[in-house]
Amino acid sequence: MQAPLLLTPGPLVTSALTKSAMQHDWGSWDSDFNALTARVGQRLLAIIDGADNYTCVPMQGSGTFAVEAAIGSLLPQSGKLLVLANGAYGLRMAQLTRQIGRQVMVADFGETSPVDPAVLRRYLEADESITHVGVIHCETSTGILNPIEAIAGETASLGRKLIIDSMSAFGALPLSARNLPFEAVIGSSNKCLEGVPGMGFVLVRTEALEQAEGRSHSLSLDLYAQWRYMQKTGQWRYTPPTHVVAAFDSAIAQYEAEGGQPARLARYRANCETLIAGLKDIGLASFLPAEIQAPIIVTVHAPKHPAWNFNEFYQRVKARGVILYPGKLTAVETFRVGCIGAIDSSDMRRGLAAIAAVLDEMGMRQ
Amino acid sequence: MQAPLLLTPGPLVTSALTKSAMQHDWGSWDSDFNALTARVGQRLLAIIDGADNYTCVPMQGSGTFAVEAAIGSLLPQSGKLLVLANGAYGLRMAQLTRQIGRQVMVADFGETSPVDPAVLRRYLEADESITHVGVIHCETSTGILNPIEAIAGETASLGRKLIIDSMSAFGALPLSARNLPFEAVIGSSNKCLEGVPGMGFVLVRTEALEQAEGRSHSLSLDLYAQWRYMQKTGQWRYTPPTHVVAAFDSAIAQYEAEGGQPARLARYRANCETLIAGLKDIGLASFLPAEIQAPIIVTVHAPKHPAWNFNEFYQRVKARGVILYPGKLTAVETFRVGCIGAIDSSDMRRGLAAIAAVLDEMGMRQ
Ligand SMILES: Cc1ncc(COP(=O)(O)O)c(C=O)c1O
Ligand SMILES: Cc1ncc(COP(=O)(O)O)c(C=O)c1O
Repeated sequence: MQAPLLLTPGPLVTSALTKSAMQHDWGSWDSDFNALTARVGQRLLAIIDGADNYTCVPMQGSGTFAVEAAIGSLLPQSGKLLVLANGAYGLRMAQLTRQIGRQVMVADFGETSPVDPAVLRRYLEADESITHVGVIHCETSTGILNPIEAIAGETASLGRKLIIDSMSAFGALPLSARNLPFEAVIGSSNKCLEGVPGMGFVLVRTEALEQAEGRSHSLSLDLYAQWRYMQKTGQWRYTPPTHVVAAFDSAIAQYEAEGGQPARLARYRANCETLIAGLKDIGLASFLPAEIQAPIIVTVHAPKHPAWNFNEFYQRVKARGVILYPGKLTAVETFRVGCIGAIDSSDMRRGLAAIAAVLDEMGMRQ
Repeated sequence: MQAPLLLTPGPLVTSALTKSAMQHDWGSWDSDFNALTARVGQRLLAIIDGADNYTCVPMQGSGTFAVEAAIGSLLPQSGKLLVLANGAYGLRMAQLTRQIGRQVMVADFGETSPVDPAVLRRYLEADESITHVGVIHCETSTGILNPIEAIAGETASLGRKLIIDSMSAFGALPLSARNLPFEAVIGSSNKCLEGVPGMGFVLVRTEALEQAEGRSHSLSLDLYAQWRYMQKTGQWRYTPPTHVVAAFDSAIAQYEAEGGQPARLARYRANCETLIAGLKDIGLASFLPAEIQAPIIVTVHAPKHPAWNFNEFYQRVKARGVILYPGKLTAVETFRVGCIGAIDSSDMRRGLAAIAAVLDEMGMRQ
């Protein structure tokens, strides 16, 4: 089967080298595999300049599992989380906090605006019982970049703790523990680090982790227990997704070889600029203003045509070897195009050519 | 790197074909991937003759995640689970049930005896508040095979519901919904079906699943929500481990081509017999009597030598390309050898030769 070009926010196109790392069966109890796990953790910590004060705890499952593990372990029973929401992933963070029986409050900024740090300040001043703030770094449901420095500044200046879901941004957008105060940041293997899906990770202030014993609502998702077991044995507490971890290790090595975060960001930025300019040429407008557009995923207005049908469009583009992503906005007809993965501007141009050809076919070129 | 021979209870040796299924990047939203997910579910249901009354719900994460998801969704808040424990995995089932805040009681049969159905009957007769019974099919911590037919019979005859953790037995030991009454059976990708690790699954009576709405203690591990979402969209609710699922699909196709459960059991049985006979030749005794030994994993008495050191033994055997597994018994010095994976009797003989050579080297051949 010919490999499709995935223009999606992950799972995404991975390199041949990353996939080839899955051609080996590891013993999950073995010291070679433990060394691999340790190396992945160290490299992830280096990305945020966190080697001194932070600990990496990997977690089996999808990214949501890691978010749930982080909140279930870091938010005390008596704590209260303020979620800064501007899309589906912010709302999901609030939903899971509610479901696990912790106190949560939502500051909802709608679907089309970034989080406003001044509003955050008013929430924190008004409610002293808020202990933690949760925010989405890049809200993947639209592609909005939230102003993480200002959010971290307000949160810290008012003495609260910040939990960042950086799932779709980690490794591409800058985030350093040296100049940004935060309690924990959550990522996953299959986004900007270009691994395959199957694990997430939480980079958490070691002091916060030390206080997290016995808090979790779940055995499997107990971040503290995973950490302690790993400290003691070097192993994951329950069976790790060995092939996924090995692919992730390889993907991170390739990330470093490419030049790390600045290089990754530059490539994605070029992808994003190529995409937005090319869409304009085809007559399609991107949804977000440039200032708040993260170079991760672009929401695109669907052609204003009475016969527009995303599924037909999707299938036709797919027949040309390109996989797009549906929109997630409620009020406006959109679709999404990812800028991330082991792809470059020439792939973007291939994607654009497929989109243009299909709109021509469908008689919807504007 | 030369592939080691994993004589472990999973992750285990997978075939080249299974690994090659991970050379493709799937779009997790795409209909081709949805078809793959659906096919895996149908094939798993066919293994237990469950197509009519059962539903397959896959779950991201390791096997424990699937056990937790099953119990969190199938045991009502007012329910009470009796766990029939004879090793680490039974105790873990009880621990997770306690941790998620449900009522649980343990019938502990020690580490060296199978579950006694007559004792189960007395527990159920004595406590009417027990609604569910949990049991481990093959208790991997020793290799004991539990008498699943008799356990299912007693449980059903007393009107209770049975949840079977068949993690290390599923697909190799017979288990049919036609002649065995049970509520749910739990398995994972990386055991007797010989896939790679990263997902589990629950095969559950559809009627039971229909009543499970809103019960889960967890968002990520909500079995009901995963099912409903999948029914509606064909997709996993959160990002699936796409490469792991594709490998599992391939592994199950190979399982069917080999002849399904009877053929798989015959191969593992031959592995196990070769192993036990070969150990005897070397002067090592297996721990369990033959009647209760499942052909999955064999617990072996360590040589009775004052200088015995498992780690040294392990490293030396590993240097010969063979990975063994530590023992899990508290009172007796043992190690374990797995009989499962894409291996046959000739591999077993290779493993035995390595063990014999190392014992000679260490001067511990008895
Ligand atoms: C910002 C953000 N948070 C959380 C998630 C959840 O990830 P998953 O689907 O892996 O559970 C995603 C996935 O796209 C995401 O983009
Ligand atoms: C019987 C049994 N139950 C549960 C598990 C837990 O599986 P995992 O380590 O994948 O969480 C195992 C793993 O070996 C097992 O053998």
